[in-house]
Parts: sequence; structure tokens; C-alpha cells
Amino acid sequence: MIITSPCFLYTSDIATEIADYADVAKRIIDLAVFGAAQNRSYRRLADFTDTIGNRVSGSENLNMAIKYMYNAMTQDGLDVHLEPVKIPHWVRGKESAVMIVPRVKNLAILGLGSSVGTPPEGIEAEVLVVQSFEELKHRASEATGKIVVFNQPFVSYGETVAYRAYGASEAAKVGAVATLIRSITPFSINSPHTGWQDYQDGVKRIPTACITVEDAELMWRLSKRGQKIMIRVTMAAKTFPDADSFNTVAEIKGWQHPEQVVLLSGHLDSWDVGQGAMDDGGGAMISWEVLSLIKDLGLRPRRTLRTVLWTAEEQGGVGAQQYYNLHKVNISNFDLVMESDLGTFRPEALQFTGSDAARKVMEEVVKLLAPINMTKLETHGEGTDISPWMQAGVPGASLYVADSRYFWFHHSEGDTMSVQDPQDMNLCSALWAVVSFVVADLQDMLPR
Amino acid sequence: MIITSPCFLYTSDIATEIADYADVAKRIIDLAVFGAAQNRSYRRLADFTDTIGNRVSGSENLNMAIKYMYNAMTQDGLDVHLEPVKIPHWVRGKESAVMIVPRVKNLAILGLGSSVGTPPEGIEAEVLVVQSFEELKHRASEATGKIVVFNQPFVSYGETVAYRAYGASEAAKVGAVATLIRSITPFSINSPHTGWQDYQDGVKRIPTACITVEDAELMWRLSKRGQKIMIRVTMAAKTFPDADSFNTVAEIKGWQHPEQVVLLSGHLDSWDVGQGAMDDGGGAMISWEVLSLIKDLGLRPRRTLRTVLWTAEEQGGVGAQQYYNLHKVNISNFDLVMESDLGTFRPEALQFTGSDAARKVMEEVVKLLAPINMTKLETHGEGTDISPWMQAGVPGASLYVADSRYFWFHHSEGDTMSVQDPQDMNLCSALWAVVSFVVADLQDMLPR
Repeated sequence: MIITSPCFLYTSDIATEIADYADVAKRIIDLAVFGAAQNRSYRRLADFTDTIGNRVSGSENLNMAIKYMYNAMTQDGLDVHLEPVKIPHWVRGKESAVMIVPRVKNLAILGLGSSVGTPPEGIEAEVLVVQSFEELKHRASEATGKIVVFNQPFVSYGETVAYRAYGASEAAKVGAVATLIRSITPFSINSPHTGWQDYQDGVKRIPTACITVEDAELMWRLSKRGQKIMIRVTMAAKTFPDADSFNTVAEIKGWQHPEQVVLLSGHLDSWDVGQGAMDDGGGAMISWEVLSLIKDLGLRPRRTLRTVLWTAEEQGGVGAQQYYNLHKVNISNFDLVMESDLGTFRPEALQFTGSDAARKVMEEVVKLLAPINMTKLETHGEGTDISPWMQAGVPGASLYVADSRYFWFHHSEGDTMSVQDPQDMNLCSALWAVVSFVVADLQDMLPR
Repeated sequence: MIITSPCFLYTSDIATEIADYADVAKRIIDLAVFGAAQNRSYRRLADFTDTIGNRVSGSENLNMAIKYMYNAMTQDGLDVHLEPVKIPHWVRGKESAVMIVPRVKNLAILGLGSSVGTPPEGIEAEVLVVQSFEELKHRASEATGKIVVFNQPFVSYGETVAYRAYGASEAAKVGAVATLIRSITPFSINSPHTGWQDYQDGVKRIPTACITVEDAELMWRLSKRGQKIMIRVTMAAKTFPDADSFNTVAEIKGWQHPEQVVLLSGHLDSWDVGQGAMDDGGGAMISWEVLSLIKDLGLRPRRTLRTVLWTAEEQGGVGAQQYYNLHKVNISNFDLVMESDLGTFRPEALQFTGSDAARKVMEEVVKLLAPINMTKLETHGEGTDISPWMQAGVPGASLYVADSRYFWFHHSEGDTMSVQDPQDMNLCSALWAVVSFVVADLQDMLPR
């Protein structure tokens, strides 16, 4: 006698239901990777970034980018609308740093988002070089009146970014007048990287910028030899009142449950250096490409496929947080939230956060990607913009790519179309489309 | 009966003679790689570049560098002297380029050595983008009054550098007013690379600079879409009368044939960007290190070991050519000329140019490097500075290293201490010292 548990029955049923999508999945893949849509997401990204350039929160470029995408997706025959958001407006202004003792050497810097500026004549001070917060604590008495240079080694982005985020306030607590922080990257061609930083409440706000790995190591060597170092840093950075912006929303309405949603996303804003091709133009473009592919094939899922291009992600997921606040009342209708913000290089896996039952469904879904050999399902969906939903229990998925060089370019002048590959983007689009379409078309929403 | 040919006898004798150096070679290797001299060439290079920085032909920094090395090698107990040389004096001055149509975008540029400047207000002109000299020829009629942008793909440095060297004159011949050339590198983080360029006699001299791979590709995409591109380029570059400089010469006199010489070398000058650590601080330091190692071990070869730190290599081997002109009268006493100017990363081989008979000797010599597993002898010694000697028939050797990233940093702000590794430099020094000492100490000079 064979006893079948309900769970087994469920799995078996859903496996069969999903396996029936093999033909549809194959058609999506063929169109995206080998057919008429081949290289389209790459071409769209090139047209977009070549036309607009970078587009930092609060900038006129970001306004232009939103208009550009609104028009482009409308012309593509999609249902597009904008949802208003208030976003930070920080402007870098002119900035420079020069080591003046023991010799004159220009330092390549990038001020950090939200940093205050210096007086117009700059800040000139002696330098204290430390390798960690720990060392800063031990040498707190030496920091007063100094520019603290952090030469922390790169361990991982997730771990090392703490120096960029909190370095200024930690140094201010022990009396520093400015901070220069080694860029958060494992590799450099004397290339500084920017990013957001957070002042702590009640702590003096001091100017803060990233310098290059090379210059941080240079000053560390000088200080190890007991040499006195002086720097003059000048930053015209300024924060203006919050600006008006929009999340850009395009969708294909579901035929059976239009109120239920599979959400695809990337962020449209970027930093104010480089071209924002990798971070996150690619994620935005493949999320648009999904709707184009589904439409081109004359498909329409049971549930709504919604693409959201977030605004002001780089300032801490500002657009996405406001979207969540506005739409969380309908949280029970959000089936799956997806974000691509780790690059659109060669896809390696779908990262997924959800219940065990939902994971079982997703394991079947990724099997449909066998024709392009991308059937790996990892744990932990990630993405600043989808995390409020995941924290509230909505299943979330993200695109994981072969990203060994991602942080070489991240938030630097090196984030350009030259790091993107059309065929890799075809594969990202195919994966993104098969997963979202099938989940949106299943009989049932993903179990929570 | 066994018949031994004279050649076999010769080979056998020299093989035995060289094999007897195994103990000496081992002592040199032990000192350089594991002993008291461990990391010394790296430390010296760090002290030198951190103190002086870059040192372009004609600059005060180059004067300081020569003084620094004269003093340092003298303090090391070596016999040091300077040999006067007249060298080019080109000064970059302030320079910038901005794409103004179809949108405003700053272009990172580096003017090329010997380029003329622009008028103070700059040159503003429409752009013609080409991918090759061939394409420029086909589109010659479109070039008049334009800024020609070369977006040639990187094939190899040796092949692709022709665009940097000759791009300006080729474009001027068809009426261009300036040239912007894609940097000669296989990889970029929006990093421009400089280098020497040659104006052709009788051709109008137009300003010429390198732009980044990324910006060259951007403008190529724009032009492929039929978009008009306008650029304003401003360069204050200026050429001054030739300046006074020196080749820096240090030596350990041979005990038996002091007039016979094994010459070791690297060049002391660099470009005016980056720190000149890789090109060619490393080569200079290991060539000094050889003398230190031999002296530390109390060794003295039959022939003189002479280290020459060339001046103005980057302007076409200017110091080395004058050295050759001065010393070629003694050419019969030059046993072997060696140069390290391909980087001091992990050594892979000794490159050698010489007669078959000389190669047989060198094949035995490199066997002495078995303890560090570096017994590879390649063909074709190379080096701008030693080539006059090799062309005149003197055996020449160069250090070949694992250089896959060499051109990523070459002539850019990325040429810093951060690309150097102390252990790799130990190995380079050991190889360099064993080869030069043994050749200098053999009964006979290398056969020509």
C-alpha cells in the first residue's frame, strides 16, 4: 500500500502544471536569445544611456530619463503611468584633494552622497591613517583636528561598505575634521568610487569622500614610515530641498486576476559618475524587455505583470519605500516581487526568498530554463527596493549573475556600456521573462 | 669508438663550467628570495616612488629621481657616476575635452608626448569616428575640418600602438584639425593612457590625445546611429628646448677583465601620470638589487657588472641612444646587455637574442634557476634601450613576466605601487642576479 501525503500530491500537481509551460518557455527563450528580440535590451540600454548619461536623484537628467522611459514604453504599446515620489537632492559640486606634505600629489576623489561641503577655501589638515574602526578607537586621541584616512582592506562589499557609510560619523566622534575613505572595490586603476553615506544623529557632520585604493595605500606606507602627511580637501557639495520625481510603472494586465501582481523591477536612477549602464540601467531594461517579449508573443498571463523602474534607489531605496507605503494595503495581491540590481552579466541563478512551499514551486519553474542551462535556484532574494515586501512576507526573487568584476565598476566612471554584453543581456531577459510569466500565469498565487 | 665533435666538446665543457655555479646561484637565490634581502627591491621601489612620484623627461622630478638614485646607490657602497644626456622637454599643461553635441559629457583625456597644444580657447569641431587607418582613407573627404576619433580595437600593443604613434599625422594629411585616439589597452575603468607620438615631416602638426575605450565606443555608437557629434578640446601642451639629464651608472668592477661588461638596466624616467612604479621603477630597482646582492655575498665576477638607469626612454630611448653612441667604440667589450622594461611581475622566462652558440651557453645558465623553477629561455631579447647593441651584434637579454595586466596600467594613473608584489620582485631580482653574475664570471665572453 502506498500512502501519499497531501504535500506530495501538491508538489506532483504543481510540477505537472509547470512542466506544461515548457513550450511557452521555449518560445520566450527563442525569441529573446535567438529570434527577433535578440540584443534588443542591449540596444535599448545603449540608446538610453548614450542619450541621457547618468541620472542622480534630484537631477534634471533623472527627469529626462523618466520622460524617456515613459515615452519609450508607451510607444512599445504598454500601459504606462508615473507615481509621484519625493526624493533627496544632493549636488556634488566642484571637488578636489591634494596631498601637500610630504610632496604635492593630486588625489582622485569622489565626494559621498549626503556629505556636507568644506568652506570655499577647503580644509587643510594633518592626516591620521587607520586601517579599521578598531584602530581608530585605539588612536582616538590622535584624531583631533585631523583628516582621517581609512585604508581598510576590501573583504566583501557587504562588510567593507560600513567604512563608506559610517566612516565620517565615527571619525567626527573622535574630533576629525574630514574623512577620506579608500574606495569599496577589490580592484582599481586609480579609480575612485562614490556612494551614499549616513551621518549619525547628534554627531558633527564633516565632509567625506572616497579616494583610490592606490592613494590610500600610498598614505598608509608614508604613515608607517613615520612621515607627516598634510592634505587640502575642497568640496562644494550641497543638499537642496527634496525634489519631485516618479516611479515609472508599465504593465500587462492579467486576464483573470488583474488585481494580482507579479512585480519586475530595476532602478532608473544612478550615481552622478559613469553612465549608470550596469547600476542599474541593465536591470531596468530587462524588466521592460519582459513585457515586450510577452506582448510580442501575444501572451497574456492570468495575473498582472508589472514593471516598476524605481527612482532614488541609490539614496536608500527612497522611491521603492514610498511605493511600498502606498501599495502595502494590497499586499495580499502581491504574488512575487522581483528585482535585478546586481548587474546583467551572464546569469548564474535566480535568488529566491519565500516559504518552503513557495520554494518547491520555484524549483519547478527554473527547470523551464533548461534550454539555456540556467536552472539554479539560490536562497536569499535580494534588492534594496523589494526588501520591504520580502520583510512583510511576500516572496521575492533577484537575478544573480557572474559578477566577479561588478564592484570594479560600481559607482565609478567605469560604469558604462563597455561592461555590458548583448548576449548576456539576452539570457538575463529570457530568464527574467520565463520566471515572471509562468508565476503570473499559474492557477494559484505562490504560497506564503 | 666514439667520435666527439668540437662543438660537443665545447658544449660539454661550458656545461660543466656553468653547472659548477649551482652553489653560488643557490646562495644568490636564498639571499634574494628567503634571506636578508627579501623584499628589499620592493621596499626600495616603494620608498623611491612614494618620495619622488612620476618623473617625465625634462621635469624637475626626473632630476630629483637621478639625485635620489645616485645618493642611494652610493650609500649602498657602489661605484656610481652620471653620464650627461640631452633629453626632450615636453610639458602637458592643462588639458580637457568635452563632448558638447549631442549632449554635454566630459571626456577623460591624456595628451600625447610631443603633441602641440590648441589655441587657448580650444578647438571646437565636428567629429569623424573611424575604426582604422583603412576606414580613414576611404572617408578622407569627410575628414576636412573635423576632429578625427580613432576607435581602433585593441589587437596587441605592438600592433595597435601605431594609432597612437601615427594617428595625428595620418588624420592631418586628410585635413583633420585634431585627433582623439582610443587608449592602447585591452581593459579600462574609463582610464586614459598617454605615450609618445611621432609627427611626420612636412605634415601639419595637430593636437593629439588619447581618450578612454569607453568614450571611443560611445562616440562610435552615436556615429553609427547617424548622430552628429561635436567636441571642444583644449590642450596647453608645449615643447621646450632640450634639457640636461643623465644616465645613472653603478658598477662592480671585474677582477680579471674590468674593461669587459655585462650591462643590466631599466629606465628611471616615466610618464607624467601615475607613479612609474611598473614602467619602469621595477626594472630599475632589480637592476640595482643585483649589485647589492653580489656585494652582500662578497662576490666579485671576472668582468664588470654595470647597472645603467636610462633617462628619457619614453621619448624613444634617448638616453640609451646617446650611451650607445658614446660607448660603441668599445663594443667588443660588451659581453651581454640586459634590460627589464616589461614589468617586474612573476618572472616567466629570460628572453634572449644572440648566436646559436651563445644561446647554448644561456641554456645552461638558466638551468641554475631550477631552485625557483624559472629555467625557460625564450627567443628575442627586447628593450628599447638595449636594441642598438643587439642590432650591432651584442647578445641581449630581457625579463619576461606574467604580464596579462601590464597594459591595463601602462602609461596611466594606474601605474602605482599597488600593482607590485614583493615576492614577485624577489624572484625577478634572483633571476636577474644569477644570470648576470654567472655570465660575467665565465672564463670566456659569450660567443657572438
